[in-house]
Amino acid sequence: MLAHRNLKEDRVTNSTKPGALESGAPQGNSDAFRRALGHFATGVTIITAESDGVLAGITANSFNSVSLDPPLVLWSVKKTSTSWPTFAAAKSFAINVLASDQAPLASQFAKSGTDKFRDVDWKPGATGAPLLGGVTAQFECARRVEYEGGDHLIVVGEVSYFARYERRPLVFTQGRFSLAIDNLDAAPTSANLRDAPYPTFLTMLRRAFLQRASEFREEAHSVGFTMNESRLMYHLELSPGLQLEGLARVSLLDLDAARDGIASLERKEWIGRGSDGSLQLTVLGVEQNAKLARLAHGAEANKLMRFSAAEISKAREIIEAFGGRLDNVPAYREPQ
Amino acid sequence: MLAHRNLKEDRVTNSTKPGALESGAPQGNSDAFRRALGHFATGVTIITAESDGVLAGITANSFNSVSLDPPLVLWSVKKTSTSWPTFAAAKSFAINVLASDQAPLASQFAKSGTDKFRDVDWKPGATGAPLLGGVTAQFECARRVEYEGGDHLIVVGEVSYFARYERRPLVFTQGRFSLAIDNLDAAPTSANLRDAPYPTFLTMLRRAFLQRASEFREEAHSVGFTMNESRLMYHLELSPGLQLEGLARVSLLDLDAARDGIASLERKEWIGRGSDGSLQLTVLGVEQNAKLARLAHGAEANKLMRFSAAEISKAREIIEAFGGRLDNVPAYREPQ
Repeated sequence: MLAHRNLKEDRVTNSTKPGALESGAPQGNSDAFRRALGHFATGVTIITAESDGVLAGITANSFNSVSLDPPLVLWSVKKTSTSWPTFAAAKSFAINVLASDQAPLASQFAKSGTDKFRDVDWKPGATGAPLLGGVTAQFECARRVEYEGGDHLIVVGEVSYFARYERRPLVFTQGRFSLAIDNLDAAPTSANLRDAPYPTFLTMLRRAFLQRASEFREEAHSVGFTMNESRLMYHLELSPGLQLEGLARVSLLDLDAARDGIASLERKEWIGRGSDGSLQLTVLGVEQNAKLARLAHGAEANKLMRFSAAEISKAREIIEAFGGRLDNVPAYREPQ
Repeated sequence: MLAHRNLKEDRVTNSTKPGALESGAPQGNSDAFRRALGHFATGVTIITAESDGVLAGITANSFNSVSLDPPLVLWSVKKTSTSWPTFAAAKSFAINVLASDQAPLASQFAKSGTDKFRDVDWKPGATGAPLLGGVTAQFECARRVEYEGGDHLIVVGEVSYFARYERRPLVFTQGRFSLAIDNLDAAPTSANLRDAPYPTFLTMLRRAFLQRASEFREEAHSVGFTMNESRLMYHLELSPGLQLEGLARVSLLDLDAARDGIASLERKEWIGRGSDGSLQLTVLGVEQNAKLARLAHGAEANKLMRFSAAEISKAREIIEAFGGRLDNVPAYREPQ
């Protein structure tokens, strides 16, 4: 448990709250403040506009509803955003709410200075602002007012048209692109009526997965990994030589969270950086990964001690019958 | 598939978008507009203030960050909120970001006209605004400015103190209180390095659960249930006689989503309502529930045809070894 305690202390800055990972005043502490804000989950949107044939698109999770009558929504944009002038010249904008498989689009539109719409499925909406395909919801808006908001502007729009689709929303929380599932933690009863005369595999798989996932977080902590660091380490062993952006993309982290994790892993000397910015595990890092893998396999073996190897192997086949066999997909490569 | 198509048509109002569940202009269509907004996932906060010994607390998912420097955040409050006068009289407020097991608190603070702080673990922060226990993050804020926002005010505060904790955030999406998990949908590779020499059960359980959960959504649709309706029907069979608020709470839905679902189920005559507002399944409703249970068990049995009853039973034991046995918790009862 020492490693775990050290890990927590690593992350505590200026703490006065017992049990807090990080706490303090935001001034001079803006990375930690940003991480605290990341504990509020959000969806992910790409907000678009068109003016004189110029297209603009910004990844934003600062979207929110304001008013039903009149139908108002808001989002915030950095005052220094190079896309803002196009929005400022347009009378309208469109909010594209991303579906669970659209994290790569979020990364693409978060990067400035490139042709963000390249290879993107879109068409102009009634207002001219681009509507993206495959989203879970869309809002076409007339610009109403911008309010002062420190280093950002708060942009308020009136919705003229909305649509929602049968697709699961992409979720962003603690720097990670995630998926929302039914919340057993909060369920006041675990009775299982629909499961009579015996529980469905769905019920059992859910419970087993959530329990095992929560244990794995503890195992990762005990080796010295946050969940984000564990992801970075995993993908870096799989695809050595990735740079920040590529590693963030395959790890399903945003750039800030990937930067945080990489900096922490470099301090621990578990990853190293080439002169071209390419990253790879150190010998120590490879050992850490192996340690976590051993720990995870060991924890699982412990739970199954009373079963024979043949029984366990058959249970694997049965679980795979639900989930499909794991593919051996080749390692991700940085686009040229 | 006819039932499925009918279900979708049920929910389409004023549609012009191919494939949309609902679309149109928000005017005169505010329930559908609200449902579209619900496709943007959010965290859940309870925002508190204190003035002259009077405590106020409001459940809000309209929180968001605005600016890092200065550190600004915002949220929106209904102009008619009976709690607003206390906020307006206070110089400060606190944002309490709820953890995954705090959905009941969200319901408690969403209800006006009761002692919201009853039985709640809280203490005054440095500004006097109540800080709740067990949250995943906290922000103490000085009120800076309120902006006009239709039927709401946009409240901007400057953060003087933040804290974040090792707890998973509560997620709210499509009317449901949810949990965020790692997003396989968006992962560009399914290779499984850490799983050598064979996949961990964690990996297999995750894949099997997500696959089976997505099939179950289709099964529920084919019977004529949205996911929210399926939850309401399940809990109403378990606890007949619940009223709107109690049913919403056990179904992990907010009041709007529960109202939507109940209205739709009443139109289909699958639930009935007593003169005191108590709800229960109709004979037809009980049949629908049984139909879905048969469908789910049948789909699972189909996947396992090549295994013997003894093998399946042993696999159940092995999965339960990870997740713990299901408890027979007594049915939820409406508080007196």
